[in-house]
Amino acid sequence: MFNLNNYLKKNRTIVNKRLGSIINPNAHESRLFDAMHHSLMAGGKRIRPILCISAAESVGSSADDVLSAACAIELIHTYSLIHDDLPSMDNDDLRRGIPTCHKAFDEATAILAGDALLTLAFEYLAKEFLLMDDPKDGLEIIRKIAFAAGPYGMIEGQMQDIQAEQKKLTLKELEKLHRLKTGALIEASVFAGATISKTTDDKKKLLKKYAENIGLAFQVTDDVLNVKGNPDRMGKAVGTDLERQKNTYPSLMGLTDAEEKAQQFVDIAIDSLSAFDHRADPLRAIANYIIKRDQ
Amino acid sequence: MFNLNNYLKKNRTIVNKRLGSIINPNAHESRLFDAMHHSLMAGGKRIRPILCISAAESVGSSADDVLSAACAIELIHTYSLIHDDLPSMDNDDLRRGIPTCHKAFDEATAILAGDALLTLAFEYLAKEFLLMDDPKDGLEIIRKIAFAAGPYGMIEGQMQDIQAEQKKLTLKELEKLHRLKTGALIEASVFAGATISKTTDDKKKLLKKYAENIGLAFQVTDDVLNVKGNPDRMGKAVGTDLERQKNTYPSLMGLTDAEEKAQQFVDIAIDSLSAFDHRADPLRAIANYIIKRDQ
Repeated sequence: MFNLNNYLKKNRTIVNKRLGSIINPNAHESRLFDAMHHSLMAGGKRIRPILCISAAESVGSSADDVLSAACAIELIHTYSLIHDDLPSMDNDDLRRGIPTCHKAFDEATAILAGDALLTLAFEYLAKEFLLMDDPKDGLEIIRKIAFAAGPYGMIEGQMQDIQAEQKKLTLKELEKLHRLKTGALIEASVFAGATISKTTDDKKKLLKKYAENIGLAFQVTDDVLNVKGNPDRMGKAVGTDLERQKNTYPSLMGLTDAEEKAQQFVDIAIDSLSAFDHRADPLRAIANYIIKRDQ
Repeated sequence: MFNLNNYLKKNRTIVNKRLGSIINPNAHESRLFDAMHHSLMAGGKRIRPILCISAAESVGSSADDVLSAACAIELIHTYSLIHDDLPSMDNDDLRRGIPTCHKAFDEATAILAGDALLTLAFEYLAKEFLLMDDPKDGLEIIRKIAFAAGPYGMIEGQMQDIQAEQKKLTLKELEKLHRLKTGALIEASVFAGATISKTTDDKKKLLKKYAENIGLAFQVTDDVLNVKGNPDRMGKAVGTDLERQKNTYPSLMGLTDAEEKAQQFVDIAIDSLSAFDHRADPLRAIANYIIKRDQ
């Protein structure tokens, strides 16, 4: 019987070990590395790298095959959190239970630490893919990750999120925003796992559908947790979306409908895996976990 | 007879045309693209992309062969200027004669525009190299550029520059700072040109020496121009280093010695090209131009 908790714990350990070796502040004596390390090793859920691993496993590869790509994506995710938390953006003091990077260091250092994590992600990807069999796959994955993280994906999503603070979005606009801001990088995580595993185009398409839907479920649940979550469990403040009059699923459709919406996204995600065997059980379990989590 | 002005003008036009096609704000209707375009198309000297082209030409390739890498480097250079100008860093209002990105837009938009240019550079590199013959060269160039721009290169240089504001550096420390902050990306520009052209390791080594020395000459001259340059010609304020008590070559060794130092770096750079034929004339002329420029 598949045990998700053990699975998440095991893979988090693998991911954290690799991340710790990529950013080892003891090797550098640099304020920059200290700041990068502060935010990277603050104990995130590591959902994106684990999704990358689970996607690879679902089509017959192992964590080892995709660990470099998985960790590069976590570097990018962490950079995005550091910049999103800045005073000129969300102005958050707390993240993952500890001071945000600009609070623990200063604003200039936080901007540079974010820049550094982003740049390092691509250096690491290129370096690791140079050691692998198929450099073309490497370029394909770098392209996909950069596209998802860039001005056609995550960064445009953040820009739209800031601009939306002054207006009321429709549900459709909100969904588009989240597809860019959160969905694109989650989809790239799954894509990277599938590409390294050299699976069929059909399976890639199904995994893409899975990723799109859990990306949306993830965001709806984030919004729900901001209303009813426990700040101690979450390591950050709750109720802030309402305070800032942010466009969220609960504010647009009510809490109950938002929770139902999240469940629908999860159902579609799991349905899209019906052609996959038991090796996709982690992906199925993660889909359920995404809306049942309390942090 | 080789005419540098015509050469720079011709290549600037080629580079600008390509950059304009990469960032076309009319195609997107996005505040993010407007901000990226504002800073990218403000009329820089395009020294890095032109160096990439000249390095390629010096070993038998053409501008066409390296234009993608050359332009990706300019995207990265522009992002670094946007972030360096931010209020929490150098707090500059003017760049290339027009308002800096955060002045023309706002701070959050400027941070995101910088992030976007950086990320887009890698997406563009990967996409373009996928169309080329040797994907391994592509990974090699991405690795080198990311290394130069990242926490072992440019970003660490900027961090050290900020930290140095509170102390007096030695000449050796100042040189190390500039090797990171400016030198690394200039060297990567030349490396990219040499790698695509598949030249020998010997020639690569000589081009590296050339790049290191013009990188330093470039920075010394920047410092000199901040003392005696014409702000109208330069499109930004002068005298600001002294005001901020920045560590510069003129402040550490006096203006005359600094100018002599720049000339020495140029001499070494040109010497390192003695085994190259007339196709390296642009590189030689650029080395001289770097210390004779007035902007």
